[in-house]
Amino acid sequence: MADLLATSRRLHALGIRRAMALIDRGRAEANLARFAARAGRDGIVFRPHFKTHQSAAVAEWFRAAGVTRAAVSSAGMAAYFAAHGWTDLTLAIGANPLETAAYDELAGRIRLGLTIDSPAACEALLASLTRPVALWIEIDTGHGRSGIAWDDNAGLIALASCLQSALADPRYGGPGHHLAGLLTHGGQSYEARSSQEAAAVLADVRERLLAARAALNGARLPAGLLSAGDTPGLAACADWSGFDEVRPGNFIFCDLMQLAIGACAETDLACAVACPVIGVYPQRGEAIVHAGAVHLSSERLDAAGRAIFGRLLGLSKEGFAGLLAGWEVTGLAQEHGRLYAGTERAKAELAELRPGDLVLIAPVHACLTCEQFASYLTLEGEVLTRYRRD
Amino acid sequence: MADLLATSRRLHALGIRRAMALIDRGRAEANLARFAARAGRDGIVFRPHFKTHQSAAVAEWFRAAGVTRAAVSSAGMAAYFAAHGWTDLTLAIGANPLETAAYDELAGRIRLGLTIDSPAACEALLASLTRPVALWIEIDTGHGRSGIAWDDNAGLIALASCLQSALADPRYGGPGHHLAGLLTHGGQSYEARSSQEAAAVLADVRERLLAARAALNGARLPAGLLSAGDTPGLAACADWSGFDEVRPGNFIFCDLMQLAIGACAETDLACAVACPVIGVYPQRGEAIVHAGAVHLSSERLDAAGRAIFGRLLGLSKEGFAGLLAGWEVTGLAQEHGRLYAGTERAKAELAELRPGDLVLIAPVHACLTCEQFASYLTLEGEVLTRYRRD
Repeated sequence: MADLLATSRRLHALGIRRAMALIDRGRAEANLARFAARAGRDGIVFRPHFKTHQSAAVAEWFRAAGVTRAAVSSAGMAAYFAAHGWTDLTLAIGANPLETAAYDELAGRIRLGLTIDSPAACEALLASLTRPVALWIEIDTGHGRSGIAWDDNAGLIALASCLQSALADPRYGGPGHHLAGLLTHGGQSYEARSSQEAAAVLADVRERLLAARAALNGARLPAGLLSAGDTPGLAACADWSGFDEVRPGNFIFCDLMQLAIGACAETDLACAVACPVIGVYPQRGEAIVHAGAVHLSSERLDAAGRAIFGRLLGLSKEGFAGLLAGWEVTGLAQEHGRLYAGTERAKAELAELRPGDLVLIAPVHACLTCEQFASYLTLEGEVLTRYRRD
Repeated sequence: MADLLATSRRLHALGIRRAMALIDRGRAEANLARFAARAGRDGIVFRPHFKTHQSAAVAEWFRAAGVTRAAVSSAGMAAYFAAHGWTDLTLAIGANPLETAAYDELAGRIRLGLTIDSPAACEALLASLTRPVALWIEIDTGHGRSGIAWDDNAGLIALASCLQSALADPRYGGPGHHLAGLLTHGGQSYEARSSQEAAAVLADVRERLLAARAALNGARLPAGLLSAGDTPGLAACADWSGFDEVRPGNFIFCDLMQLAIGACAETDLACAVACPVIGVYPQRGEAIVHAGAVHLSSERLDAAGRAIFGRLLGLSKEGFAGLLAGWEVTGLAQEHGRLYAGTERAKAELAELRPGDLVLIAPVHACLTCEQFASYLTLEGEVLTRYRRD
C-alpha cells in the first residue's frame, strides 16, 4: 500500500524535513533506456536536452547508456557540462550575440553547436568567433515561437545563402565553421491532448523540415542534418524516420503535462517534490504544505476547467507508486501550496493528516520544478547537485 | 527619452550580456522610506517581510531606514539573515514541526517568532523547543489559505487555551515561550482591482482581527499584539490604526500585479529583468528574448482576457522610466520569452530591433521573479547577492 500516511512514513524514513526534489532513479533510467534504444535501433543521433535535469550526476546515467552528445540552453549550462567531461554540446536556442566571448571560449574546448534564424544573428556571431562551431538553422515547423518559418522559402534561402557566403569569406570562415543542419522544436505538441494528436504533430514537423530542406536543395544550397526536439511528439510517434537527430529533454522525468498529453504513463513519473504539511483544515477539505511557487514553479494544468498545480503521488517500498486519487494542488502562493481532498476517501485521509506529515507532489512541468532546487535526492539517499545560474 | 533602443543602449552600457535582475535603488529606497514613515508616524512596529528581496545587502537599506525587525518564510532564510546581524525575526508562515531543531538553534541566537494555527502544531513545536520563542496565532481573516478562521470562536478559544496550558506546563513553558499575538495575511487583497477595493480588504482584516481578539478576551484569554501583512491593503489604506505591527514585503520593489491592484504607481516599479533579444519576427509583430519562466517565473496577469507575463520598461539617464506603451510579454517557455508589439509605434520599434539588443521587463510578481536570480545588479553597477536555498 502506498496511501497518504504510508507515503508520509516512507518520506520521513528518508530524513526529509523540508521541500526537496526526489528522483526515482529506476524510473528515470527506464525512461532513458527506452528512448536511447529507439534512437539506436533507427540509427538516429540521440542528443538529449539536459535543461530538464541540469545535473552532472544525472548526466552520468546518460553516459552509461551510451550517450555522448547533449543539447543545452545557455552558455553557462554548456560550460557546466563541459567542465564535467561533455565534449559535444548544442545550444538549442537562438544564439545570443552578447555571449560570443563565452561561446568562443567553449569552442576552444568542445565541439559546440550554435543556433541562428536570421542573417543579423549569423553576422553578429561570425564577426566575433575565432574558433570553429557547428551552425544550425532553426526552422519554425508550426510552433510559432522561434526559427524561420518552414514555408518562408525566400527567407530561408536568403539566410542559407548569407551563411554560405560568410563561411566562404576568409574573415568569417577562417576558423572552420560549418553548417550542421536544420533544427526545430515542435513545441506545438504541448497543445495535444492525446498521443494520436502528439504523434500527428511530429509527422507534420517531419514533413515541414523535409520541405525546408527540399527548398534549400532546390536552390542548390546545402541543408545538412535534420534535428527535432520535443518529448510529446517523440514519445507518441513510433516512427522517427526522416530525422537525423532527436533532442528530447523532459522524457527523463516526465510530469503531469506529459501525462495529460498521453506522452507518458503514470509509472514513468520519475521526479516529485516531497514537502511538509503545515496546516490541516478538514472543514474546507484542504491542507497547506510548505511548498509554493518557489518550489513547484507556477506552472498550471487545466483539469476540467480548473487550474491545478500538482497531484499527490504515493511512495511504496519499491519506489514511486501511483497518483493518489482525489488529491490535487489547487493553489500556490510564494511558499504555500494548497492541497484539496476531492473525494470521500481523500477527505478521510485528510482527517488523519497532521502538521509534520510529508506528502509527495508530482509536478505539472518537471523542467521548471527542478529548476527551483539546488539538488535532487534519490530514493537510495544519494544527493545529486545541479547547475545553477550565478 | 527612454524608448526601446535608448533603453537597449543604456543596458549595454551597464555591461549586461544575459538575463539579470536589475534594481533601481533610488525607487526602492523611496518605497521603503514611504512605508517606514507611515509606520513610524502611527507608532506601529514595522516588520517588513524579507522574502521579497532575500538579500543581506538590500536589508542594509532597511537598517539604514531604522528597521530592526523582519519577517521571513523559512528556517533557512531566518538563518541567513541572522548570520547578517538580524536579531529579531518572525517566521510568518505556519511552523514546520520537522524543523524544530533549526528553530531551536536560531532561538539560541536571536529573538525568534513562530506561527501556529492548531493545537497539533503547538504541541509538536513545544515538545521539542528548549529555548524561548515568541508564538503567534495565525488568523484567517478572509484569505482562506492558512490560519484559524477569525469567526471560529470555539476553535480559537480551544487553541489559545491549549497554548496557555502548555506555557504553564513546566515540560513546555520552561524555556520561557510567550504568546506574541495574532498574526494574519490578508492575501485576498490580491483579488482587488482598485485601491478602494484593496483598502476595503484591509478594513475588513482589521475588523476581523479585532473580533478574534475580543473573542479571546471575552473568554479571559490573552491575545497579545495584532500583526497584519499584505502590501496591497497597507499601500491602499491610509489608516493603519488598530494594528500593532505591519509586515508588508512586496512594497520594496512593487510589480505589475501591484500596479493592476492600484497599490503602487508606475514610478514605484523598482525591479526588472534585463535580457537579450535573440530573435526578431516583424511579420508576427514579435521578438523573442532569452528570458523565460526560469528567469521571470510563470506568474501571469489577466489583461483584458489575455494572460501577460510582463511589460517593457524604459531606462533613462535618471533610472527606470515609464512602461513602454504597446509592448507585452505574451508567452514564456523555459528559457524563451515572447514580446508582442501591439501598436503601430511598437511595431516601428520592433522593425529596428536586432538580436543582441537588450530590453527591460517589468515582472508580474517581483517576489517570484527575484527568486530566480542569485543576485541583483543596481543601476550604479553594484552586485547584491541573495539568499539561496541549498
